[in-house]
Amino acid sequence: MPVRKRLEIISLGDELLLGLRDNAHLSYMGRELARKGLAIARDQEIRDNAEDIRNYFLETWQRADIVITTGGLGPTADDLTRETIAAALGLELVMDELAAEEIRKRLSSIGRKAGPVHLRQACIPTGAEILPNRNGTAPGVWLEKDGKILIMLPGPGMEMRPMFMEEVLPRLEARDIALINEAYLQIRTCGLPESELGPMLAPLFDPYGQRVKVGYSCHLGVVDIRIGAADDSMSWKEIETLGDSCRELLGADFVGYGDVSLAERIVAQLRSEERSLCVAESCTGGLLSSAFADIPGASKVFRGGIVCYNNDVKMELLDLPAEILEQHGAVSSETAVAMAVGAQERLDCDYALSITGYAGPDNGGPDTAPTGTVYIGYASPDGVWSRKVFLSGTRQNVRERAVIVALDWMRRKLKKYDELKTRPRNEAKAI
Amino acid sequence: MPVRKRLEIISLGDELLLGLRDNAHLSYMGRELARKGLAIARDQEIRDNAEDIRNYFLETWQRADIVITTGGLGPTADDLTRETIAAALGLELVMDELAAEEIRKRLSSIGRKAGPVHLRQACIPTGAEILPNRNGTAPGVWLEKDGKILIMLPGPGMEMRPMFMEEVLPRLEARDIALINEAYLQIRTCGLPESELGPMLAPLFDPYGQRVKVGYSCHLGVVDIRIGAADDSMSWKEIETLGDSCRELLGADFVGYGDVSLAERIVAQLRSEERSLCVAESCTGGLLSSAFADIPGASKVFRGGIVCYNNDVKMELLDLPAEILEQHGAVSSETAVAMAVGAQERLDCDYALSITGYAGPDNGGPDTAPTGTVYIGYASPDGVWSRKVFLSGTRQNVRERAVIVALDWMRRKLKKYDELKTRPRNEAKAI
Repeated sequence: MPVRKRLEIISLGDELLLGLRDNAHLSYMGRELARKGLAIARDQEIRDNAEDIRNYFLETWQRADIVITTGGLGPTADDLTRETIAAALGLELVMDELAAEEIRKRLSSIGRKAGPVHLRQACIPTGAEILPNRNGTAPGVWLEKDGKILIMLPGPGMEMRPMFMEEVLPRLEARDIALINEAYLQIRTCGLPESELGPMLAPLFDPYGQRVKVGYSCHLGVVDIRIGAADDSMSWKEIETLGDSCRELLGADFVGYGDVSLAERIVAQLRSEERSLCVAESCTGGLLSSAFADIPGASKVFRGGIVCYNNDVKMELLDLPAEILEQHGAVSSETAVAMAVGAQERLDCDYALSITGYAGPDNGGPDTAPTGTVYIGYASPDGVWSRKVFLSGTRQNVRERAVIVALDWMRRKLKKYDELKTRPRNEAKAI
Repeated sequence: MPVRKRLEIISLGDELLLGLRDNAHLSYMGRELARKGLAIARDQEIRDNAEDIRNYFLETWQRADIVITTGGLGPTADDLTRETIAAALGLELVMDELAAEEIRKRLSSIGRKAGPVHLRQACIPTGAEILPNRNGTAPGVWLEKDGKILIMLPGPGMEMRPMFMEEVLPRLEARDIALINEAYLQIRTCGLPESELGPMLAPLFDPYGQRVKVGYSCHLGVVDIRIGAADDSMSWKEIETLGDSCRELLGADFVGYGDVSLAERIVAQLRSEERSLCVAESCTGGLLSSAFADIPGASKVFRGGIVCYNNDVKMELLDLPAEILEQHGAVSSETAVAMAVGAQERLDCDYALSITGYAGPDNGGPDTAPTGTVYIGYASPDGVWSRKVFLSGTRQNVRERAVIVALDWMRRKLKKYDELKTRPRNEAKAI
């Protein structure tokens, strides 16, 4: 077990406090540090203002063992982090010749000359080390002082993230502060809420008592379970065994280990079987299609989708009979199935998934179904099904959750037929 | 001008520090407070741990005039905010009978009985006031003490947001801390980077000197400009006049005032002309379609879209001639136009927008075009066009930016033909 250190983050930038963007750096670093067994004790978002930087940095430096700052390392006048923190620590700034050379090279490659404004970025506090920036001019800074560590990282995500992974984590591992291996096993589930998963899995965790740490997190119906060791008495082997027991008990609610998405599971299985897939959707307006297209390499399986925001489009592109729309309405089990079958045929695919529903904001459809009513259709070589669900929340919420419900349903259907195919036919033999 | 107060936020929740979710409360409150002329001086994310809550709260309470906390007001064991902060301030917790009654009613409406665990949520520090929660059991708390204000809000967004808008902002306005009117005018632009907009607009702002505050924020090619008054000498009327001058100078780069999206502008214009719209897309996989479907009421204009991840689908659903694909490739000007025309005809629409390109992660297509090459096609009653762009970044980045570029291009084309139609025909008369 590595030494427990108090790690704090300071995120600089007026835009974070004016509601101009979310602080995605915090969740990124939180996730990567948690993987390595390190917890963030506190994060602060503060303004690009020398007085605030000085005050809050000094207060944090006194309390923490490791301080990571993001932002304010660039060449413009409101980039004050390096200067202000060096002064607060009573350190001079000195130019790092290698870093200056890197800046000159990078600017000359785009036909520009490095002036004093740019070279200021190569100045680091005495005793500090440069963290190279492969996607920008501002290098990061690593400083060890009074038994503490200060890490200053640039603000833009595409500069900060590789620097964090390639320069910061390895240094924390080398000092036995971060774990070299994963600190926890993540199990992704779909189907049961956290309030039911907890009591269901408790009998598996209870025998380990305080040795095991279990955390739950939930997003739109997907619940992740993180299993980690509370101390050295719990080995990674034991965590893996525990993970396998959970997997068995979860059954079809088990999606996968790690960050695998529902759509990825579907694409991976269809790819292994060399099967093809398409979608047809109305209220989700392209989100279902995009869930599959998001996956690199999806084109091997996913052939395309039809977004029909209009009944004429359903009839024209999906060959949906006008009688079905007239008799059952656009939001109905019959229409959902006809959409899936129409897409399956028109796009010449083995599988098709469809969604039709009322996402709001107005009060449902002309027939009595209220806003939030969603039908899912599914066409496969094994047959055709539909399913009705009711989802509450805002328009955007209903649309996002409808996609999750449809993907999870298809995943279960595939799994079921996959198991039928691979199940050893002992019973047959016994006869 | 309201009195300038130092406002700080404390966001409670282990999940914020473990990378399990972004702190969307911060950007929400930042935006709403900025609208009312209030700036957040600092935000902190801290753990649900009594010692941390106590320490960080006291340090913040000493420095700030207004402290807002979110989270930790619920009924479970890790909800410690109310108790810990009351104790830190040396205040007793007393039960508010009206709040207790609300909790009993809310639970009884779902067939449950309120126990001591639930009623604990109705306990507030002596001298505090209850902020009613219309979407949950935990009420908020408003406390004025030693000339400072403490506001405790529940963690779930659907409980916090209405409480913030309906209970918190009006109280801040009544105390002349927040402005009753908007504090700034937002202008949304697309087409020029911040580095060019600044110098271009500076001559308009310069005459106002220090009286005007101008802020820029950029997201995927869309740049917002916020114009506000630095003090009482600048009236709202003057801000509006300045906004109109910016609009004129920006020309086609002006998208709209406020938070209007590119797709909204297109839908609004086509709706006023009773025209219809559809899309065809490949590498963006449903994102273009979804940008239109996102807009409430879009179905009046937007008829649907075709996502073709596969050449066969392009031919089958968009009637794309095989010769075009063979001679020019799937990622070409010719294919982009043929996709738009095919969608326009098949979905029987006045307008069609298409995107085809290589979003990565592999190295571009079989023909020499590199990853990031994107063609946009456009079919309209005024003619047919295509445009080539090159976008750098990750797969997700290329896809999102391709959608922005396509929407902005269509917006400009519409605007141009709209102006041709409405331009007074003085020249014709003169002849």
